[in-house]
Amino acid sequence: MIIHKPYLLFLGDAHDDLAAKTAIGVWQWRPEECVGQLRLPGCVPKLPIDEIDLEEGRRRGARTLLIGVANRGGTIAESWISVLVRALELGYDLCNGLHTRLGSIAPIREAAARSGARIIEVREPAQYPIANALPRSGRRLLAVGTDCSVGKMYTTLALERALRDRGVPADFRATGQTGIMIAGGGVPVDAVVSDFVAGSVEQLCPANTPDHWDLIEGQGSLFHPSYSGVSLGLLHGATPDALVMCHEPTRQHLRGLPHWPVPTLEDCFELHLRCARMMNPAARFVGMAINTSALADDAARRLLSELAQRFSLPASDPVRYGVDSIVDEILR
Amino acid sequence: MIIHKPYLLFLGDAHDDLAAKTAIGVWQWRPEECVGQLRLPGCVPKLPIDEIDLEEGRRRGARTLLIGVANRGGTIAESWISVLVRALELGYDLCNGLHTRLGSIAPIREAAARSGARIIEVREPAQYPIANALPRSGRRLLAVGTDCSVGKMYTTLALERALRDRGVPADFRATGQTGIMIAGGGVPVDAVVSDFVAGSVEQLCPANTPDHWDLIEGQGSLFHPSYSGVSLGLLHGATPDALVMCHEPTRQHLRGLPHWPVPTLEDCFELHLRCARMMNPAARFVGMAINTSALADDAARRLLSELAQRFSLPASDPVRYGVDSIVDEILR
Repeated sequence: MIIHKPYLLFLGDAHDDLAAKTAIGVWQWRPEECVGQLRLPGCVPKLPIDEIDLEEGRRRGARTLLIGVANRGGTIAESWISVLVRALELGYDLCNGLHTRLGSIAPIREAAARSGARIIEVREPAQYPIANALPRSGRRLLAVGTDCSVGKMYTTLALERALRDRGVPADFRATGQTGIMIAGGGVPVDAVVSDFVAGSVEQLCPANTPDHWDLIEGQGSLFHPSYSGVSLGLLHGATPDALVMCHEPTRQHLRGLPHWPVPTLEDCFELHLRCARMMNPAARFVGMAINTSALADDAARRLLSELAQRFSLPASDPVRYGVDSIVDEILR
Repeated sequence: MIIHKPYLLFLGDAHDDLAAKTAIGVWQWRPEECVGQLRLPGCVPKLPIDEIDLEEGRRRGARTLLIGVANRGGTIAESWISVLVRALELGYDLCNGLHTRLGSIAPIREAAARSGARIIEVREPAQYPIANALPRSGRRLLAVGTDCSVGKMYTTLALERALRDRGVPADFRATGQTGIMIAGGGVPVDAVVSDFVAGSVEQLCPANTPDHWDLIEGQGSLFHPSYSGVSLGLLHGATPDALVMCHEPTRQHLRGLPHWPVPTLEDCFELHLRCARMMNPAARFVGMAINTSALADDAARRLLSELAQRFSLPASDPVRYGVDSIVDEILR
C-alpha cells in the first residue's frame, strides 16, 4: 500500500478536532507533504496551513486527496460526494481511512474508473505471505504497551524524527490507519487475516543496511485479551532488536474492558522480553514512553524518575519531554 | 457456520488417501452422519461404507454433499462440475473445504441460485465480534502444542468420545477445515481477521452448563513465529480451564521453517501456562498427547513413561494407547 505524496488534506465538515485527528496527525508529522487543507461549510477544526480548493491543490502538486476525518459512524457524508468525484476528475488519488469503502459509492467508483485515479482504502489489507522467520539485516525497534492507545504511534514517530536529527537513517513503519496516512504506506495489521499477520510485518520492515533503524508502530498489548494475538504476531514478524514500553499510568482498566485490570509494568516487561527473545536473544528494552498528560509537571517528573530508577531504563513522556534519553539508549 | 447433516461424502477422483483425508476424518469421527460415499472414475481411496449415487444419497436423507477431497493446488476439477450442479438441483447443500470457492464457478453458482441450496465455503469466515473477555460458565479444554500438525484435532476428538463414553457432556469445537466438517460447524480461525480472532473463539465456545466440557481444537504454536499470533488469540478467546500439550518427539524443526528448532517441552509448558493464567488463574495442564508413530512400541512406551514422570502428568499417544489417563486427570 503506497500513497502518493504530497497531500491535500480533506477535513470535510468535521465538528471537532477529534473527528479530524488523522488530518491533524499527518500535518503534525509530515507538514512538508501537505500542500494545504480543504474545508467544507460547517467545518470546525482548522490547521495553520493554507486553505485552498481542489484546483489550487493540483497546481501546488498534490497527488492525493487524503480523507483525514472521521464522521460519526465512519460513513461518507452526502455533501462530500460531489467534492470527491471532482477530485477524481482532476486526477487526485483518494485515500480513505474510514470503515465505509469509497468503492461502495457508485458515483465515486464510476468517477475513478473514468479518470484512472486510484482509490486507496487504508483499512483494506493486501495479500501477504506466511512469515518465513529468516534473519534479516538492519535494526528494528517496536513500541509495545500495557494497553491499546497508550502512545505507540506518537513514540515511534518521535523516535524517527530524533534519530534522523542525529543523522541516523531511520523509518517509521505504520501498522494503523493514521500511521499509514502519515507514512504514506504500511500494513493495517488488525485488518490482516490472522495467518498472515507476522508475514505482513516481515514485509513492512524488510532487510535494510546494518545501521538503519525501522521504528515499528505497535498495536494492542500481549495482555489485552481482545487483541493479544495481533500483538504477538506483530512482535514475531517485527523481530525487534529494541523495544520501548508505552504506558498510561492513570488508566483504571484496559481499554474497552471495564472489568479488566491494567497489567503491572514488571509483568509486561517480562512477557515481552520472553516472546521477543524467542526470535532474537539480544532483544532488549531501551526505554519507557509514559503518557503523563493527566499529571502536573512536578508529579510527572517525579513519576518518570521513579520509573527510570525502578527499571534502570530511560523514562520520558515523548510529548512533554521528548525522546532524547531513549535515543541515547538506542545508540549506546 | 452450521453444516446440515447427514452427509454424502464426495471423494471425487482422489489419487490417494492423503487427498481424501478430510472425507476419511469425517467418516472416522462421525460415521453415523455419513449415508454413503460418491466416487468418480479414477478414484483410488475407498471407505468401508456404501458407494451410492446422488439420488440414493437423497433417499437416505443426506442434506449436504461434503467435498472431502483435496486436489493438487486445491482447485475444482472440470469433471466435478456437472456432479456438483446435479447435487444442487437435487437439493443438496454443498460444503467445500478447498481454497477455490465454489461460488467462483459460474455453473455452480447459478445452480445454487436456481435451487435455493446453500454453498458453504469452510475457509470463508463469518463476521465476528471483538472479544469481551467476560467470564462464562462451563468448562473448556484447549489442545496446544510445540508445533503445527502434532495431533491437536485428533486429541480433542478422542477426548470428546472418551468423555461422552463416561457420561460427561462434551463437545468438540473445531477451528480448522477438517474439524469443521467433522463437527458440522466451527470457526476457521486462521482465516479470521486478526482483530476478531479471540472474539470468534468466544463465540465458538459460549457459556454452557457448569459440568459441560468444550474440547477446543488448537492451531499452530505460541513458539511458531509464523502463526504464534493465531495461537495466542485462540488461547485468550478459549480461556481454558485445562490444557493438553501435543508433541511429535522426532520432529527436527518447526513445520515450514527448516532453520527453526522445536521448542523444549519445559518452555512450552511454562509460556502456555503464563498466558492462560492471565485469563484464568486456575488453568492447568491435564496431560500430554505424544505422536509416537515414528517409534516402535517399546520405545514409545518408554518415552511416555519418562515424560509422565518428568512432568508429573499423564502422557499417552491418543492413536495408539487412547486418552483414558488424560480423561482421569480432567475429571480428578
